[in-house]
Amino acid sequence: MEQIKVLLNESDIPRRWYNLAADLPTPLLPPLGPDGNPVSPDMLAPVFPMNLIEQEVSAERWIDIPEEILNILYRWRPAPLRRALYLEKFLGTPAKIYFKDESVSPPGSHKPNTAVAQAWYNKQFGIERLTTETGAGQWGSALAFACKLVGLECKVFMVRISFDQKPFRKMMMGVWGANCVASPSSETNAGRHVLEKMPDTPGSLGIAISEAIEQAVTDTSGKTRYSLGSVLNHVLLHQTIIGLEAKKQLEMVGIKKPDVVIGCAGGGSNFAGLSFPFVADKINGADIKIIPVEPTACPTMTRAPFVYDFGDTACTTPLLAMHSLGHSFVPPPIHAGGLRYHGMAPLVCQAIVEGLLEPRAYHQLQSYEAAITWAGTEGFIPAPETSQALAAVIDEAKKAKEEGKEKVILFNYSGHGLMDLTGYDAYLSGRLTDYELPDEEMQKYLKDLEQLPKAEMRKTGKW
Amino acid sequence: MEQIKVLLNESDIPRRWYNLAADLPTPLLPPLGPDGNPVSPDMLAPVFPMNLIEQEVSAERWIDIPEEILNILYRWRPAPLRRALYLEKFLGTPAKIYFKDESVSPPGSHKPNTAVAQAWYNKQFGIERLTTETGAGQWGSALAFACKLVGLECKVFMVRISFDQKPFRKMMMGVWGANCVASPSSETNAGRHVLEKMPDTPGSLGIAISEAIEQAVTDTSGKTRYSLGSVLNHVLLHQTIIGLEAKKQLEMVGIKKPDVVIGCAGGGSNFAGLSFPFVADKINGADIKIIPVEPTACPTMTRAPFVYDFGDTACTTPLLAMHSLGHSFVPPPIHAGGLRYHGMAPLVCQAIVEGLLEPRAYHQLQSYEAAITWAGTEGFIPAPETSQALAAVIDEAKKAKEEGKEKVILFNYSGHGLMDLTGYDAYLSGRLTDYELPDEEMQKYLKDLEQLPKAEMRKTGKW
Repeated sequence: MEQIKVLLNESDIPRRWYNLAADLPTPLLPPLGPDGNPVSPDMLAPVFPMNLIEQEVSAERWIDIPEEILNILYRWRPAPLRRALYLEKFLGTPAKIYFKDESVSPPGSHKPNTAVAQAWYNKQFGIERLTTETGAGQWGSALAFACKLVGLECKVFMVRISFDQKPFRKMMMGVWGANCVASPSSETNAGRHVLEKMPDTPGSLGIAISEAIEQAVTDTSGKTRYSLGSVLNHVLLHQTIIGLEAKKQLEMVGIKKPDVVIGCAGGGSNFAGLSFPFVADKINGADIKIIPVEPTACPTMTRAPFVYDFGDTACTTPLLAMHSLGHSFVPPPIHAGGLRYHGMAPLVCQAIVEGLLEPRAYHQLQSYEAAITWAGTEGFIPAPETSQALAAVIDEAKKAKEEGKEKVILFNYSGHGLMDLTGYDAYLSGRLTDYELPDEEMQKYLKDLEQLPKAEMRKTGKW
Repeated sequence: MEQIKVLLNESDIPRRWYNLAADLPTPLLPPLGPDGNPVSPDMLAPVFPMNLIEQEVSAERWIDIPEEILNILYRWRPAPLRRALYLEKFLGTPAKIYFKDESVSPPGSHKPNTAVAQAWYNKQFGIERLTTETGAGQWGSALAFACKLVGLECKVFMVRISFDQKPFRKMMMGVWGANCVASPSSETNAGRHVLEKMPDTPGSLGIAISEAIEQAVTDTSGKTRYSLGSVLNHVLLHQTIIGLEAKKQLEMVGIKKPDVVIGCAGGGSNFAGLSFPFVADKINGADIKIIPVEPTACPTMTRAPFVYDFGDTACTTPLLAMHSLGHSFVPPPIHAGGLRYHGMAPLVCQAIVEGLLEPRAYHQLQSYEAAITWAGTEGFIPAPETSQALAAVIDEAKKAKEEGKEKVILFNYSGHGLMDLTGYDAYLSGRLTDYELPDEEMQKYLKDLEQLPKAEMRKTGKW
């Protein structure tokens, strides 16, 4: 039997995060304020603590991970690197498939890597309470977990339809002491405003973001801040511990570099966390194919232009330079809820524009088929988001078989699917369909983008 | 930071199971047939394959684990031994608390250790299909998982009320291709008989067992057998890989023996799996306190006599020598569903009678309080069954503090609670209560035991 688990001790954990902004061939485009000018760090101060804002705008290549943060992460980190030997055999592929198992964290995904860091920096800055939004609850549960361990209050605005229909992650937040309310709520102006007009609304992530930000910036004590689970530079930074661990672990089994690196991408953080240390190698000349995978139903990277757009539907954030389907885009109700974001992390987008990444989209049904194959070979049940990455992994492994090449494929197993079994049930009973936006509708969204005040297209590299 | 995770490589996995029957001071009492005589292996042949029956009656100390079984277990084994350093600090105890993390298996508990072995031996014996029963679904999902990987059909009779109210483990079984039906079903005589009389019955584990056994023994092709998830000797045998790994891992951190070993016990398999290798040491003179923990609501070990009783409510099994509250005992609806069994594994019971174990009962509310403490310190959310063990761990750690002794406490973290969040929700919103059987009612059950045909009390050791 060949080695399956490649395990690091606590003493081998990476002690610095990697910042891709330091190595991108062209400087990262700054976020813009309502006046069309780059926002200054001060302008973000009511929303985020200054120590995180400093990370957000940093161009330093390496940023030390405080020992106290590592002491929290040791509960599940270093995470295992595992070889998918059973899947390899099933496929009959000469490829070696390795994955970082981020499902081993207490909330079951990669999200706590940044939740813990954000909670800790806020605590250091004297903040006592964090607010955030959550859809199905992955991010909300991760922040609840982090706040509990760091010692902060946590307030989560959860989209009402998920709050009502998927109560389990809400209960999970309760175990960690967070206060989770359905959004729209009557606690904020934004929420009340919506409820007046549409008392029966199912809610939306956009509304929930508005509520969470409002409650952070209107706390006159100054002790509340807002926390975001993806998209932003500092969030991606905190996730790079995944890829840095993976590099050490691949070295332990004598692999100098992977040939293919794969991760699913909704806001971009799990993909970036695994891949950015390898993107750095690629910038330095290494031959690595790096694939962010998205659902065909929300084809941000594969169909949308690189523009300046708002991060939220309510237009309260600065304008971010990213591939965007438009902040008013409402993706179809696919089960990979974490991949239903209209935009994409600016760092990931700029790496796409620079020609460093090869984004790819998969249909929902193919992803579930890949997930069932995985569960029947490797045994574990993947999250629907992770299943999108799996579809690409299986394709690449089959390609290696056709080519007869012993490629090393590395991917991020970003989370388990134990809280997402209704999607499997729908798939297995034939109730799921594929979604793809008709060109006509896509054009409509792209046209909306043209209306964006001060949106600025940018074309560099091969874009 | 001290070492938290003690990790074994695949090459360090134990290659033999340990059979406590070889070392018990007095020979294990055999199961009895309807005529009051010991059942012969042949009589079990319609229910179990002969290779497992041989293990059931074996008095060999060590039994080799087939390489093919190890090749399946490597998906998650060796399981981590972890130190609960965060809980230790929170309690301010000088005790070192270590736990085997059995929650890392794909179905999330220790159950697959025997499910995989049973499926494999059945397959070897030419069996094509396994039947079983399940309450909330822990065992059913473990057997579904094992059958998928080994290549057997799997049929699970799930107690109707759980089938309807807790559909998630049913969906999990579906992912692994099992056929899960609500019990009572119209597929068996036993089920039809009940449905005729009580069409709206919520079902019971007793009925489900009868259905599963009936479907196994009435398959005229001879290709179907039945599988049980706890209680029996061969089931406990397969679980000893837990304790054998733990011994190696404790040695890796310089610990010659634990002072206290703790596991929750419903049918007894996770407790036995961790503790039996240490019970062997205790028989050989080691000073180890070994504590099986049960709920006060179902006090098999702490209040019930050691008798011969049926393993199921329908009286279809042989009579087993065990502590029993009576096969007609219906425990209150505590959330630790896996601990609601009227009896206890004969091997565990005989070790109690021999004075080797010190059983203890905890109330439901104290267990949930322990679970919340665990989730807020160690970060992970334990299964309600595991939480019973945690209550004892915390008590022992506090006692070590009072005594100022640096004891080593080892316990089995038998499963995670991600599929059991409704119990947490009920606890946190104040809807849970404690249960303890009034003496009057207990006497009634004990009196029922006197009616048992050919039941034989046995008193040895300190009993």
